[in-house]
Amino acid sequence: MKGRNPNRSQEQGSQTIYGLHAVRVMLQKHPDRVTAVRVAERRDDSRTREIDELARQRQIPVQRVDAQALTRKLGDVAHQGVVAEIRPLPPWSEDDLLAAVQAAAQALRASLILALDGVQDPHNLGACLRTADVCGALAVIVPRDRAAHVTPVVRKVAVGAAETTPVVAVTNLVRTLKLLKEAGLWVVGADAAGPKRADEVDLKGGVVLVLGAEGAGLRQLTRQTCDWIVRLPQLGAVESLNVSVAAGMLLYEAVRQRR
Amino acid sequence: MKGRNPNRSQEQGSQTIYGLHAVRVMLQKHPDRVTAVRVAERRDDSRTREIDELARQRQIPVQRVDAQALTRKLGDVAHQGVVAEIRPLPPWSEDDLLAAVQAAAQALRASLILALDGVQDPHNLGACLRTADVCGALAVIVPRDRAAHVTPVVRKVAVGAAETTPVVAVTNLVRTLKLLKEAGLWVVGADAAGPKRADEVDLKGGVVLVLGAEGAGLRQLTRQTCDWIVRLPQLGAVESLNVSVAAGMLLYEAVRQRR
Repeated sequence: MKGRNPNRSQEQGSQTIYGLHAVRVMLQKHPDRVTAVRVAERRDDSRTREIDELARQRQIPVQRVDAQALTRKLGDVAHQGVVAEIRPLPPWSEDDLLAAVQAAAQALRASLILALDGVQDPHNLGACLRTADVCGALAVIVPRDRAAHVTPVVRKVAVGAAETTPVVAVTNLVRTLKLLKEAGLWVVGADAAGPKRADEVDLKGGVVLVLGAEGAGLRQLTRQTCDWIVRLPQLGAVESLNVSVAAGMLLYEAVRQRR
Repeated sequence: MKGRNPNRSQEQGSQTIYGLHAVRVMLQKHPDRVTAVRVAERRDDSRTREIDELARQRQIPVQRVDAQALTRKLGDVAHQGVVAEIRPLPPWSEDDLLAAVQAAAQALRASLILALDGVQDPHNLGACLRTADVCGALAVIVPRDRAAHVTPVVRKVAVGAAETTPVVAVTNLVRTLKLLKEAGLWVVGADAAGPKRADEVDLKGGVVLVLGAEGAGLRQLTRQTCDWIVRLPQLGAVESLNVSVAAGMLLYEAVRQRR
């Protein structure tokens, strides 16, 4: 979704999302989490009517409001005259993640999961979450003790992805990766010295893509748990990619192969 | 290169770069721009000896210094005990760009160029510059009047790419794109509503990849100048990718096709 506004929610624990695309996707995928929809008075086009219709089908109240009042409430963001109040995404446990992987397998969907091995910077976590959402990832895994967590900064940078793509904070990343391998997924780590290019490894099945922190890279134990280590372009004077750009390239490669 | 330190250069207009990879690449590709190399006293491994040798071959003075002095000078960065003072990259004019494209064509190298249509945020410009460098782009084009320029913030985010990948500020982006088309390049713009996926368009020849500002996208005239408009993944609730991540995916796709 286009964004959210963590500090101005109307009810306790509620999140505000905005933008035609974000509100429509939330009504389609998680209508049970939408508590109210607000639409600017003057909007009367096919995309707005679709949102109106989706909300009414699910008996969610739609309120017509003044567009300027929306801007006053949300600040200078591209709300497009459409706003929804939603119940926040509850955090996922490792068990929730494994259940979701199993459900995806039963529905013959290949899971795509991003794991961040010690990414401490909240901007990088938010940017990775945004990209994971755009690429249809099932979840983003972070180690509980050595990583950024979902803070207001992360939510802001993720422009709404924190409301739809679950972050799973795990006690022991290597253990979780092993459980995911047992569940049939391949674990693919990124490293500048990787023996294969990302496009030389089959990412069409269920995969966990693992990225290390900038500079430090993957930890030794994480690396040893990977089925494959792949490298990304390194043709210039700059030694490494930003972690969210590297995540974007790897996720893109997986999406490309799956088409 | 791993980074630079804009405020502490020793000579007027000089830039400090650091890190084994960055210093080696600069000595190999632009030895004429390196004025001095400093290596930590205790370093004596094959990678450091290679830098020592490269500098001596080109008669560039190599000074042995205290590692802690380097850290005091540069701050908490991964300098790896290797630092170089370089003359900054002079800005490129449109003519410099066209000459470089022609030289690449004569050497049978397919030019890869990134153009940013109105990216105002210096963090995004810095991130794009870093990624363009990693992907071996010839240059990054920005419109002179409606874009971020190479400021200290941009240089910092680009972790040294501003010292090796030229930024070309042009008066009229559409005119420059037309000149590049006349020089034999294809102009490929990115848009969520693009009729083709990025991997359906041939990016193996000389190409200019064009990205618009987040939200606004490509301007009408820029869009009309493109030979192809391609779309990137859009599988989630978040409507769009961050511009530097989108640039990373498109540049990755071009590099992948060229292998």
